[in-house]
Amino acid sequence: MVRSILLRGFDQDIANKIGEYMEEHGINFIREFVPIKVEQIEEGTPGRLKVIAKSTKGNQIIEGEYNTVLLAIGRDACTRKIGLDKVGVKINEKTGKIPVNDEEQTNVPYIYAVGDILEDKLELTPVAIQAGRLLVQRLYAGATSKCDYVNVPTTVFTPLEYGACGYSEEAAVEKFGEENIEVYHSHFWPLEWTVPSRDNNKCYAKIICNIQDNERVIGFHVLGPNAGEVTQGFAAAIKCGMTKEQLDSTIGIHPVCAEIFTTLSVTKRSGENILQAGC
Amino acid sequence: MVRSILLRGFDQDIANKIGEYMEEHGINFIREFVPIKVEQIEEGTPGRLKVIAKSTKGNQIIEGEYNTVLLAIGRDACTRKIGLDKVGVKINEKTGKIPVNDEEQTNVPYIYAVGDILEDKLELTPVAIQAGRLLVQRLYAGATSKCDYVNVPTTVFTPLEYGACGYSEEAAVEKFGEENIEVYHSHFWPLEWTVPSRDNNKCYAKIICNIQDNERVIGFHVLGPNAGEVTQGFAAAIKCGMTKEQLDSTIGIHPVCAEIFTTLSVTKRSGENILQAGC
Ligand SMILES: Cc1cc2nc3c(=O)[nH]c(=O)nc-3n(C[C@H](O)[C@H](O)[C@H](O)COP(=O)(O)OP(=O)(O)OC[C@H]3O[C@@H](n4cnc5c(N)ncnc54)[C@H](O)[C@@H]3O)c2cc1C
Ligand SMILES: Cc1cc2nc3c(=O)[nH]c(=O)nc-3n(C[C@H](O)[C@H](O)[C@H](O)COP(=O)(O)OP(=O)(O)OC[C@H]3O[C@@H](n4cnc5c(N)ncnc54)[C@H](O)[C@@H]3O)c2cc1C
Repeated sequence: MVRSILLRGFDQDIANKIGEYMEEHGINFIREFVPIKVEQIEEGTPGRLKVIAKSTKGNQIIEGEYNTVLLAIGRDACTRKIGLDKVGVKINEKTGKIPVNDEEQTNVPYIYAVGDILEDKLELTPVAIQAGRLLVQRLYAGATSKCDYVNVPTTVFTPLEYGACGYSEEAAVEKFGEENIEVYHSHFWPLEWTVPSRDNNKCYAKIICNIQDNERVIGFHVLGPNAGEVTQGFAAAIKCGMTKEQLDSTIGIHPVCAEIFTTLSVTKRSGENILQAGC
Repeated sequence: MVRSILLRGFDQDIANKIGEYMEEHGINFIREFVPIKVEQIEEGTPGRLKVIAKSTKGNQIIEGEYNTVLLAIGRDACTRKIGLDKVGVKINEKTGKIPVNDEEQTNVPYIYAVGDILEDKLELTPVAIQAGRLLVQRLYAGATSKCDYVNVPTTVFTPLEYGACGYSEEAAVEKFGEENIEVYHSHFWPLEWTVPSRDNNKCYAKIICNIQDNERVIGFHVLGPNAGEVTQGFAAAIKCGMTKEQLDSTIGIHPVCAEIFTTLSVTKRSGENILQAGC
């Protein structure tokens, strides 16, 4: 059951490809419905559960019987009962989250906050680790580096894994204007999949470049096996200001999926064919 | 049967770890012997073969019976009978390989050569592809980029995969001097392996930095699952001149193997503990 769209905030081109892939592989999405009640019909593992759901666009109610219900939900910031008011640290009254400046400093200068508890920041383990390490180094080792909350790579562990760093296509268009970005893309076919002729043209590679800034790569997106492993190093390259030319001059590793990024030549604007026929 | 050492030319620290891992997982190496004769005792698949081998350090002869013999050998350059002498293109008389300058130009200025056929270059598919593409762009599209034969990433598809880019530790010590390089390293434990408690402290990450040049990363080595996928992006970062500081300021992706590179803090010089206890 999907409340609205898949993976809000992520590149929607990719999010839709993830959805298509899951549907082809047996997942039946009920879109624009939310569960309002779950009743147990029979105990056990698997048991039997009745799920009653309501349309997010009207009053339509549906129900169905299932063995298992998994809920993907958010977490709350438990900041209301720990005495922050005593020391005067402000929180966002609605969400409980703590606003900080770009040095993780709360409104009380000698009190810092790091991690999921922060307002408008990313809820990711390595972001918490990185921000904490850099803060300690600034406070006690004379360092000056601040945590970069923009070029944060992340991975969605869907059946076809999705790795990303930097801007989604939508966000890049909005920020820089459609005419100022160049999108290079290609399908690719992992070598191991070619033998059983499995899922040709499902894996996908896309980069977004800023034309006004020497075609610097500002968005990286990959959909395929081990997308997280593929993305991590390119995130380091993006931190180093990688341009399309530098990416092109990087030599590929054959045969791995990631090599596709070293030979991207078709722009999305051109509408040219990106289907792959072989390895 | 190993003629001399494993993976000559590759980082020997890593090559030895690969050997240890294979031995622990059932491979029985016979070191410093080469087969001199293979006799068929019985036909079929698997058949029976007698292998006679000679020590590379003396006259000792051993023999053994096997089902299958696989030979990992090199390839020859077939350049002697294609009329190169008619047009005056020089080849290396011993190897048959063709010497070229850094623009892939042979001694006959209007004849170029690309790929495995070249003397003293790497025999890798993407190197041939890259050199060919860049050559065409220089010849017909006014481009100037030359193929970079130094920062070529490569992967050895051993059971524990090995990805590398740039200098081996030995080569870096020889070129820059032991006191001018800093080696950061760590073991890591892939998340999937922690559940069955499998092979703790077998996977290994190492980078080599040039102290005199702002701790620029000049060597990258990773031993673990999907090492090739991990290496490709970091190779792009090395093309962009990545320093240790830029690597440190890259945010990791959790949980993937590659994230270990964003938190490397132990130098080899320090002798500190790099064993990993958990994920
Ligand atoms: C189901 C799920 C899956 C996730 N998967 C990923 C993933 O794949 N990759 C990724 O990068 N991130 C993932 N995350 C996010 C990641 O877990 C968080 O970003 C990370 O744990 C944040 O670290 P933190 O230290 O800020 O908070 P936490 O790890 O939540 O630590 C806060 C700690 O404070 C304790 N605490 C709370 N109140 C008090 C109190 N009054 N006194 C004392 N202790 C208190 C809590 O018990 C908790 O141990 C996932 C999160 C969830 C919920
Ligand atoms: C067993 C093996 C495994 C390998 N694994 C990898 C790997 O995992 N990753 C990797 O990057 N590289 C790998 N390589 C290396 C890779 O195959 C080569 O680097 C790559 O093929 C070189 O491309 P090339 O165009 O220079 O030469 P080739 O691909 O060898 O092409 C040369 C062509 O010329 C043809 N030819 C020769 N003489 C004549 C003639 N007189 N007239 C007409 N045609 C002729 C040959 O038949 C051949 O088709 C491997 C090589 C081998 C042998």
